[in-house]
This record gives sequence, structure tokens and C-alpha cells, in this order.
Amino acid sequence: MGKVDLSVIGIKTEPIVFEYTWKDVVLYNIGVGADENDLALVYENAAGGLSVLPSFCVVPAIRAFPYLGDNLEWSLMLHGEQVIRLSQPLAPGGKIIQVGEVLNIYDKGKGAVYRIRIKGRTEDAKDLYEAEWSIFYVGAGGFGGDPGPKAEKIVPPEGTEPDFSISEKVADNQAVIYRLSGDLNPLHLDPEAAKRGGFDRPILHGLCTYGFATRAIVSELLGGEVARLKEFSARFSDAVYPGDTLTTEGWKSDDGYIIQAKTERSIVLSNAMASIE
Amino acid sequence: MGKVDLSVIGIKTEPIVFEYTWKDVVLYNIGVGADENDLALVYENAAGGLSVLPSFCVVPAIRAFPYLGDNLEWSLMLHGEQVIRLSQPLAPGGKIIQVGEVLNIYDKGKGAVYRIRIKGRTEDAKDLYEAEWSIFYVGAGGFGGDPGPKAEKIVPPEGTEPDFSISEKVADNQAVIYRLSGDLNPLHLDPEAAKRGGFDRPILHGLCTYGFATRAIVSELLGGEVARLKEFSARFSDAVYPGDTLTTEGWKSDDGYIIQAKTERSIVLSNAMASIE
Repeated sequence: MGKVDLSVIGIKTEPIVFEYTWKDVVLYNIGVGADENDLALVYENAAGGLSVLPSFCVVPAIRAFPYLGDNLEWSLMLHGEQVIRLSQPLAPGGKIIQVGEVLNIYDKGKGAVYRIRIKGRTEDAKDLYEAEWSIFYVGAGGFGGDPGPKAEKIVPPEGTEPDFSISEKVADNQAVIYRLSGDLNPLHLDPEAAKRGGFDRPILHGLCTYGFATRAIVSELLGGEVARLKEFSARFSDAVYPGDTLTTEGWKSDDGYIIQAKTERSIVLSNAMASIE
Repeated sequence: MGKVDLSVIGIKTEPIVFEYTWKDVVLYNIGVGADENDLALVYENAAGGLSVLPSFCVVPAIRAFPYLGDNLEWSLMLHGEQVIRLSQPLAPGGKIIQVGEVLNIYDKGKGAVYRIRIKGRTEDAKDLYEAEWSIFYVGAGGFGGDPGPKAEKIVPPEGTEPDFSISEKVADNQAVIYRLSGDLNPLHLDPEAAKRGGFDRPILHGLCTYGFATRAIVSELLGGEVARLKEFSARFSDAVYPGDTLTTEGWKSDDGYIIQAKTERSIVLSNAMASIE
């Protein structure tokens, strides 16, 4: 049974420098399904320049995670939700200065939810992004803590066709490419590790699905203009397997677009919202 | 019309250091078609360790090319043949010290052939490999030079079934992945550059095809034991396009295995021989 250490709340990491080049950007873009048909995402000398998907910010952010406490049972910690907020578009290379922090640990009864934020800034201290992880720690609730705000329910309008819908096959080798962007959890390629994690076979990274959805929003809603995506939040509601067909859909609402992604079997990104400009 | 500068023959580069990690190895292996079904080629913690394909040596070698002369017309220089000779297996990371040299420039009448060798050694000066490029310089022959040795003809025995044959689809995004290992010629992803080069659409890197063939030899003949491939030579006889099905075949001979690779349209690697142990 997991146990939380509330003293980690509010402690900020030292500023952590992330340096990258166009190759890291292209490798990420290919990792979330970009291909030779979208040169702006795979060619460093593309007319108009190389586009950096807003969700690329999770690649540096994952390197600036704050300390979450000792003796955690990592196999019980599930990535529940992800938010990114962009202050300006990401350059196709350079340096990012990041600070990570545990914003809070909520007591959800059955589990605890760690709310983690990584802020990225340019070298001259201009805001670039905030990336927020919600991590559900199974069995670690019931410590008499703050239950946290009740999540707003975001669901597609019933019986209404989406304003955009795109289906793409997730390549069989998608996870082995995506992981080169930094999330090396063996759950995503080692059949033994997958079995230990309770899956029949290796599953796709949640953030790879999130990247597919981001790319879909950029291509289907924004005509490739990555700078127009300001915020994207989503809940990871089920596993995606390499080889699945992933369908990303969006419905215009007052606040932006309600987003949903699904496979042949289930909804995999829910409670999702994209704010665009 | 190209013109050769014979004074570049025999000039060696300074020792050039190439530093790499397992990620470079995995990226190369995926670039030549390795996938989640062959963990030894894509997983840094694979049981038995990460395997480095012998053909990986072309990745460092391409960074240690010697000076070939001024005012060359690069669009007229075609990669004709490739040889690799391994003295010992490549480590899945570390430093390699390389020296490149133009061994000779042969006068073939219609063109000139640059014979280029890059030698790789360990930090403690132990031989690792020799990688040799033959580059055909269209229109640059007829300068009254040495025609060079007549190439030995290596052809599969007529009417004999190969001892191994493996067909694999080259993924549509294969070239955009392979190029991340260092050969950034836009011919391989930019439709405009491909047209300027005389192709309808982007073609696969010759050395990507060569890597597919090396991987086929290792898996089909050597049971995955990369250390047993000592030498592999091949001629690039036609273009491969992403999306093609590539068939690599081998016939046992006195000196090793006669290798051939073909697509649906033509033979693409010919005059090819693998020496194994």
C-alpha cells in the first residue's frame, strides 16, 4: 500500500537546463506519428521552417520532475491527466530552463492524486509553457487530506457529429520510436514488463496518444499553425496498443474544442479540451 | 563536367572522434527496419544486451570522410559500392577514433571512381573496422589514369534456390527515420530535391537498403550473433523507394554467402558477398 509524504508539496527543483536540436524535435514528431507526408514536422529545412508540436514540451518537462517522496511504489502510480499551456511557440532547438514542483497531493479516498507542474522559460526568463501531470497513486488515499477540486465534466455533446475526426493507424513500432524521446519505461516494449504491469502486451505511452491528438488538432483545426494551440488538457482513460487505429475527434464549444480520442475498443482520451486562438 | 583532383589521393584526415550512446544504436537499428519483434536491436536492456549491427559503422564513418577536392559537382557523384570489414563487434556506446583517406581515383572512361576508406579504432588503438565507399563521379573519367582492378563478378548460381530469403516491406516513413542517423541529403524526403536528382519521388538511402540486408544476414544466417559477420560488400544497382517490398537472399559459396537484394521491380544490391564466421 502506497503512502504519501505531504512534505514534498511546494518544494521547487533547482532550475534545470534542457538543451535540444531539430533532431530531438523531428524524433518526437515521428514518435507521435508524423511522417513524410507532413514535411513541416519531419524536415529541418521545410519551407516555412520546422514545426514544433506544442506537446513537445512534455519531453523537456519529464526531465524536471520534482521529488515525490521516498519509498514510493512506482508500479502503483498511474498517469491520470495531462495539461499543457503554451505562452509562446517552441523554437526548433535551443535551451529551456525549467522548474518543477508538486502543487498538491489530493486525498481521493481510494488513492492519492499528485498534481505536478513544470514551468519552462527561455534563457532570458520569458515564459514558454506550463506542463501539468496528475498522477494517481493507487491505494495511497485515506490520509485525511484535501480531496481537491471536483473535476469539471467535459463530454462531447450527445448525438452531434464532431467538427473534425481523423483516424490513423498507430504503427506497430510506434512505442519503440516514441520512447527515444525520453520515457524509457520498459512497460512499453518489453512483454515481460508489460505482464508485470498487468497488460497482455506492451502498451503505447499515454503521452504518445496525447501527441497523436495534439498533431490531429494542429493539422485538422489549425491548418498546421502550431502557435495557435494555447492549452490542451486530457484524461487518460484506457490503454492504447501499437497497431490500434486511433480516432481523434473535436466538437466546438464556448471555450474551445471538446476533444476525444478512441480506439476500436474504447475511449482513451476523455475530459479533454483544446483552447485555440 | 566533373573534374578530378588526383592530389587528394593518400591524404589522411586527422583522427576524428565519434562519441555515441545506445540511443544512436537503437535509432540506427530502427532506421534499417528493426522493430519491437527484435528486442535485441531496439531495447537497451534486452536480455543478452543491445546488439549493434555491423553496418552501424557507416554512421560514424560518414563523419570522417576525407577531402575529395574543390569544385566537385556533388549531384554527379553516385554511391556505387560499399564494403565493411569488422575486426571486432561494435560496443553499444562509447568513443571511436577514425581516420579517412582517399585510397585511389580510378579512370573508368565515362566516369571516375573514388575509393575511400575510413578506419575506426577504439580509444586504446585497437582495430574496429574499415568502411570503404566507391563513389562514381559521372563524366569525370578520361584523364589518362589507372583504370583500377577489374571487379570480380559475383552472381547467384543460376537456377538454384537461395539458402535464405526474407521479404520485408520498407515502411513509408523509413527514409525520414534513417536520415536521423546522419545522412541528411534532402533527396530522401523532399519531393523537389528528388525531382532535381532525376527521381519521381524521394528514394531510400542506399545505406538504408544495405542496413536492411545486414540485418537480414544477421537474423537469417547468424541467429542474431552480430559478431559473426566479418565483411559485407555490395554494389548499389538500382533505387529503392519507401513502400517497396525488399527481398534479401543469400547463397552459400566457398567464400561465404553471395547476397542479393531486390524490390518488386529490380535488383538493388548486386555483386554482394558476406563473409561470416
